[in-house]
Amino acid sequence: MAKRDVCVIGVGMTKFERCDRDFTDLVHEAVRGALEMSGTSPDDLEQAYAGYVNGMSTQGQRALYGMGIGGLPVYNVNNYCSTGSTALHLGYQAIASGMNECVLAFGFEKMNKGPLEKQLLGLEEIGKEADKGAPPIAARMFGDGGRQHMELYGTTKEQFAKVSVKNHRHSVNNPRSQYRDACTLDEVLASRLVYDPLTILQCCPTSDGAGAAILCSEEYANKHGISRPVKIVAQAMTTDKMEDFAMGSLGWIGVGMSKRAAQKVYEQAGIGPDDIDVIELHDCFSTNELVTYESLQLCPEGQGGRLIDEDQVTYGGKWVVNPSGGLLSKGHPLGATGLAQCAELVWQLLGKAEKRQVENAKIGLQHNVGLGGACVVTMYQRG
Amino acid sequence: MAKRDVCVIGVGMTKFERCDRDFTDLVHEAVRGALEMSGTSPDDLEQAYAGYVNGMSTQGQRALYGMGIGGLPVYNVNNYCSTGSTALHLGYQAIASGMNECVLAFGFEKMNKGPLEKQLLGLEEIGKEADKGAPPIAARMFGDGGRQHMELYGTTKEQFAKVSVKNHRHSVNNPRSQYRDACTLDEVLASRLVYDPLTILQCCPTSDGAGAAILCSEEYANKHGISRPVKIVAQAMTTDKMEDFAMGSLGWIGVGMSKRAAQKVYEQAGIGPDDIDVIELHDCFSTNELVTYESLQLCPEGQGGRLIDEDQVTYGGKWVVNPSGGLLSKGHPLGATGLAQCAELVWQLLGKAEKRQVENAKIGLQHNVGLGGACVVTMYQRG
Repeated sequence: MAKRDVCVIGVGMTKFERCDRDFTDLVHEAVRGALEMSGTSPDDLEQAYAGYVNGMSTQGQRALYGMGIGGLPVYNVNNYCSTGSTALHLGYQAIASGMNECVLAFGFEKMNKGPLEKQLLGLEEIGKEADKGAPPIAARMFGDGGRQHMELYGTTKEQFAKVSVKNHRHSVNNPRSQYRDACTLDEVLASRLVYDPLTILQCCPTSDGAGAAILCSEEYANKHGISRPVKIVAQAMTTDKMEDFAMGSLGWIGVGMSKRAAQKVYEQAGIGPDDIDVIELHDCFSTNELVTYESLQLCPEGQGGRLIDEDQVTYGGKWVVNPSGGLLSKGHPLGATGLAQCAELVWQLLGKAEKRQVENAKIGLQHNVGLGGACVVTMYQRG
Repeated sequence: MAKRDVCVIGVGMTKFERCDRDFTDLVHEAVRGALEMSGTSPDDLEQAYAGYVNGMSTQGQRALYGMGIGGLPVYNVNNYCSTGSTALHLGYQAIASGMNECVLAFGFEKMNKGPLEKQLLGLEEIGKEADKGAPPIAARMFGDGGRQHMELYGTTKEQFAKVSVKNHRHSVNNPRSQYRDACTLDEVLASRLVYDPLTILQCCPTSDGAGAAILCSEEYANKHGISRPVKIVAQAMTTDKMEDFAMGSLGWIGVGMSKRAAQKVYEQAGIGPDDIDVIELHDCFSTNELVTYESLQLCPEGQGGRLIDEDQVTYGGKWVVNPSGGLLSKGHPLGATGLAQCAELVWQLLGKAEKRQVENAKIGLQHNVGLGGACVVTMYQRG
C-alpha cells in the first residue's frame, strides 16, 4: 500500500494549557513553527488536513485564511481523541502513495470546562448524568478497563498510579506541558477518587492547544537541503471490529484496535518493539498506558505492571514512554494530541528535546487511540 | 498527481425528505444500495470516508458498526455544503494514487427545522439574527451574488426564476426527490420573497438523507466481472484564495473556487465543456446555478441568463443540468448532496435514470461547492 517513506521536516505546537486564545491564534503558532522549522513556503503545500472535534465546519480553512494561506484543498476531519493522528494519517497517505510531494497536517482544540461529555456535540445527554454527579463517561470506561486488568492479571492500583508519577515527573522538563509538577505515589493515590481505580491525578486534564507537521517525500526534502530528515517508516490506522466489544471493558477501550495497528506497523517496518527507543502513547488515563504496553508488545499480555515496577519505561529503562509528560500531564486538546505526539518524537529523533532528551534515540513509536473508534500507530526513524 | 482512473461501481441513496429516521438507518439504506449494485463484499472495503456536518464525532463508524461493518479505517470529514464531495474526493485519491483497490465514500445529514444557521454548530449567533426576522445568511449571500450579477451583466429576476422552474420540472421524474411538483414562472416569482431576488421557490429546502458510492480501480472492477464501469476521469478540489474575497458578493459565494476546479478538471481530462452531456451542479439557490454555468465555461462570463432563456440546459438543449431536480427540488442534506449528485450521474451514464434519462449520455460533470470553503468538480465517463 505505502510506496515510499514519508519525511517529517517540520513540527510545531503551542504550550498546552487552559487559555483565552482563539483557535486561529493557536493554529497560527503551531503551523508557523512547523513551516519555519522546515523552511517550507506555504506555496509549496499541496493539501492540508485539519483535525478538530469541537466547532463549526471548515475551521481548518478559516485558520489558514487568517495566515493568508488560501487556495489549497483543506480536509476537516474528526475521530474523537485520535483526531490529530487521523489528519496525520491522511497526510501520510498522500505522500506515501506518491500523490503529493508536500502537505500540512494540523490539529487543534478549544475545550470547555467540565467533563468531556458536557463539551462535545452529541454527548449532552451523558453530560446530564455528569451534572447529577456521575463520573465522566471516559473515566468510567477506562476505569472499568483497568479493573478488568486487575481481575485478570492481578495488576495493582499502585502500578497504575506509578504511571502517573512517571509521566508527571517527565513533564517537569517539558516547557509546553500543561502541568510541570512532579508528584509522589502517595499523592497520586490520595488524590480525589474519580472512578475506581482512577484518582484525579490519573486522569488527563482539560486543555487547549494546537499542533502541526509538514510531511513530504524524500525527494522534496533533499531538494530543499534537508539531508537527513526524520522519516515515518510505517503507519497504520484501525477501527473496532465487532468481536472487540465481546472482550468486555478492555475491548471497549480499544485494545483490539491498538493491537492490530501495532502489529501492522511492526510488519510494515520490519522493525519490532525491541528496536524502539522512545514512545509517545495514549495515556488519557493511567490504566490505558499500562494496558497499552501490552498492546504494543512491549511485554506479554498481563505483565504491564511489571514494566512499570521495574522502571523499564522511563529514562534508564528499555524504553522511555511519554517523555513529554503524556496526555496525563502535558494535556489533551483532542485534535492537537496526535500532532503533539508527532512533534515530541521528531524532536527526540533530532536530538532537540533538551532536558528530556532520550539519549541516542533512533526509533520512535506513536500510539493515539480514539473511542468510537480509531487507533493510529506510527513508527518514526532518525535520518 | 492522479495515476489511474477511478471506477464507480456502486451508488446508493435514500429519498431526500424530512423524516423521523435515524442517521444510521439512512446510511444503511444508501450503503446497502451501493454494495448491492456493485456486488462488493464489505470485506473488500479497505477504507471508508464519511461526510456529515452536524453530529457527534465518529458517526461514520457508528453507522457502519450498525451494519456489522467494522475493522476498516473510517475518516469523518466535513466541509459544509461540499462535505459529501470531500468524502468522495478522499476516496478518489485513495484509488487514483494506487494506494487502495476498493473504498467506500458515504455522506448523510439529519437537518433540523429552520434556517441553516440555527442548526449548525458555531452559527448560533447568526441564528439569533434569523430569530429576529433577518433572512438566513445563505440566502443573503447567494442573493447578493445574484444582484451583483444583475448589475454587472443585466441578468433578470425572471432568468433566475426560470432555473427553479426547470429544476422543479425535472424532479417530477425523480422518485427520490423531496419535491416533485412542477411550478410555473409566475408561481416562482410570486412565492414569498426571502431575500431579493430570491423567492422561497428559489431556495433549496431543508432535507434529511444519505448517499454512498463504491470506488475501485479498473483492475478490481474487471476482476469482479464489471467490464464497463463508469469512470471518474478527473476530479479537483479547490479552496478560496485571498483575492477571491475582493471580487465582492460573487467572490464570497465561491465563484473563484468553482472556476479553478472546473479548469483543472478540463485540463486533467483533456475533455471540455462542449463534450459534456449531463451536469449535476450546486443549485442551492437559483442564482448559484446560473452563475455556475459561467464558472463551468458553458458560456462566456455574464451570459448565463441567455442559456436558460434558450433552453440550452434542459432536455433537448446542449446539456441537461440537474436532471435529478437539483438541490432546489430534490433537497440538500449537506453531507449527502455530493454523493447524491454522483449517484445521479452514474445512473445517467449507465442508462438507468428511467424517466429522466438523458439520451445517450456519455460524459457527466458534477459541481459541489461549500462556503467556508471547498469546491469539488468531477468528470465522469461512460465505460
